[in-house]
Amino acid sequence: MELSVILEDCCTRDWQTVDPDAVDPVRFAVVGLGWFTRGRVLPALEKSDLCEPAVLASSSKEKAQRIADDTSGAAHGITYGEFHDGARREAYDAVHIVTPNALHLEYVETAAAFNKAVLCEKPMERDSERAATLRDVAGAADVALMIAYRMHTEPAVRRARELIAGGYVGDPVSVTGTMSQRLLDRVNPDPDQWRLDEALAGGGALFDIGIYPLNTARFLLDTDPVAVTGNTTSTHDAFDEVEETVAFSVEFPDEVYAQCYASHNARQSSGITVTGTEGQVRVEPAFFQDQARQLHVSRGDGRATVAIEAVDQMHEEFDYFADRLRGPGSLSPDGDHGLVDMRVMEAIYEAAETDRWVAVDVEQ
Amino acid sequence: MELSVILEDCCTRDWQTVDPDAVDPVRFAVVGLGWFTRGRVLPALEKSDLCEPAVLASSSKEKAQRIADDTSGAAHGITYGEFHDGARREAYDAVHIVTPNALHLEYVETAAAFNKAVLCEKPMERDSERAATLRDVAGAADVALMIAYRMHTEPAVRRARELIAGGYVGDPVSVTGTMSQRLLDRVNPDPDQWRLDEALAGGGALFDIGIYPLNTARFLLDTDPVAVTGNTTSTHDAFDEVEETVAFSVEFPDEVYAQCYASHNARQSSGITVTGTEGQVRVEPAFFQDQARQLHVSRGDGRATVAIEAVDQMHEEFDYFADRLRGPGSLSPDGDHGLVDMRVMEAIYEAAETDRWVAVDVEQ
Repeated sequence: MELSVILEDCCTRDWQTVDPDAVDPVRFAVVGLGWFTRGRVLPALEKSDLCEPAVLASSSKEKAQRIADDTSGAAHGITYGEFHDGARREAYDAVHIVTPNALHLEYVETAAAFNKAVLCEKPMERDSERAATLRDVAGAADVALMIAYRMHTEPAVRRARELIAGGYVGDPVSVTGTMSQRLLDRVNPDPDQWRLDEALAGGGALFDIGIYPLNTARFLLDTDPVAVTGNTTSTHDAFDEVEETVAFSVEFPDEVYAQCYASHNARQSSGITVTGTEGQVRVEPAFFQDQARQLHVSRGDGRATVAIEAVDQMHEEFDYFADRLRGPGSLSPDGDHGLVDMRVMEAIYEAAETDRWVAVDVEQ
Repeated sequence: MELSVILEDCCTRDWQTVDPDAVDPVRFAVVGLGWFTRGRVLPALEKSDLCEPAVLASSSKEKAQRIADDTSGAAHGITYGEFHDGARREAYDAVHIVTPNALHLEYVETAAAFNKAVLCEKPMERDSERAATLRDVAGAADVALMIAYRMHTEPAVRRARELIAGGYVGDPVSVTGTMSQRLLDRVNPDPDQWRLDEALAGGGALFDIGIYPLNTARFLLDTDPVAVTGNTTSTHDAFDEVEETVAFSVEFPDEVYAQCYASHNARQSSGITVTGTEGQVRVEPAFFQDQARQLHVSRGDGRATVAIEAVDQMHEEFDYFADRLRGPGSLSPDGDHGLVDMRVMEAIYEAAETDRWVAVDVEQ
């Protein structure tokens, strides 16, 4: 990977294998109609040539139908109960699960029973045991399962990964990854939101946003953690069940360490840096949508900041998923991949409880 | 501290109390004439109005005199033995100790015996026991002792500190600090250099460069560590006694965590970022000399990068030290301050040995 390629053709869909005009679009049932679905998921499905919104499921039939009426291409609003009962199942090919984490499994079970492909939001579930069951349910039914890590189809991250794989930084030595936001002040002021409910979320800042630097470090290095440590803290009453802030360290093979933190109570910021023996690659801003990406690279005496046009990350992700369903390419990140993050995050919580480094067992 | 002040008067010597024309310059004996002394220390002393190079001590009298002859203002080259014997002691007021770490104590003992002020390079010594003795020797003789943390008089760092103290970032939540270089390839190719010798250095990347993000985090937050963890690694045979790379985490009071790494075998890079509830301040490049500083600040919807002219950091440090010797201001960082870093770094090594978090006892 030469820098010149990045400068010329940065946002190319290097993963694309099918011609959108030559295949039927993948029709989606979207389960869960919170702000992320309304603001991110449905607009991306509306603009896609490879996907269509078809069926929308929510707790309220009226809400579901109202949103369906406002969504180009979506005909049917149904309840969660109706979804489980198979309502409108002839109208969709795949299910995008955007519910609270602890409900992912039950919708995957239903999707699998109806032989539908699954795009499941991350983290996979509220704990690794349920995540393993989720993976096994999809596997037993032989339905496609992808975990919705949108960084895997973010052009800036893909170009950074190609640079690293091509030797631009030499041997990786260290990773620094961060993600922070003001959840209550800037994203969602509701103190009763499910992200603050341990039974529904499974974890706090780590599960919700720390998973970005964690998973992106795995993706950039193309390897999995060996051991972790970390600490969790909370300052607000709203974070009495799950942590507000997490600082964690990840050991990767060959003694490469990633130093990370994530906070639901710090100024919005996100970035990931890989420093190697020869050079450095940084994506910053990295993980929030709607921000134009910057890829900062340096090596030898040279140093450059490459501005990368902001893509609609959900559009990229949906089209990749549809491309893999309609084309010959294999699908990733799969359930095994998502399960590694679940085990790693649980190990970080164990480390925080015990003030130790905890070995990660990524065997499945 | 308003941003406008930084933009208008960034490199002001806010610490200055004396008029250079109204006081006698501080005449220095410089002990240790390695590349850092020749390239950094002597040029700074030559250009200072408050300091003068006077006596240079080395292992070889011929080398010391040759360098003295080439240094404007330095008259006398002497051997280490002659320094201990009191040679030319009437010609200097203060001693700058730039020897291998494990030799600092013996030169402080001599300086104290001759009632000379001491500017001692960091880390203070090869271990905390000797560092405590060093502090006590200076204290018992009532000679001024400053540990040479040049970030304390680096304008970019001072402005960042003022912004943080003034509430610009809100409550600090997280610190990320890094420093890396290619020691053997780019700085000093000698595999027999003292930095690689555990008996002379006391530690590797942590002692030599990891101390920059560690100490600067302390300085920016104006507080001291509570607990640490870390890991050390080496890939080259030259690093068989001391570590090549260290990744470490520092817990500060109020559960603020600093995630740091330092490497003697990674592309040159340095930076420190403090993220708070309201904003973020970053100095990058931060720790290497000769690089124009950048202060990156963001808060609310605003984001700015302030370019700060590169000052001669050793010149700033020497002039501050002389200002404090000649004026009424109190001198810092002192021996107590330096000793905290020694204890913290030893705790990081203990943590690396035991895969634990280790509480830091900063009581003296």
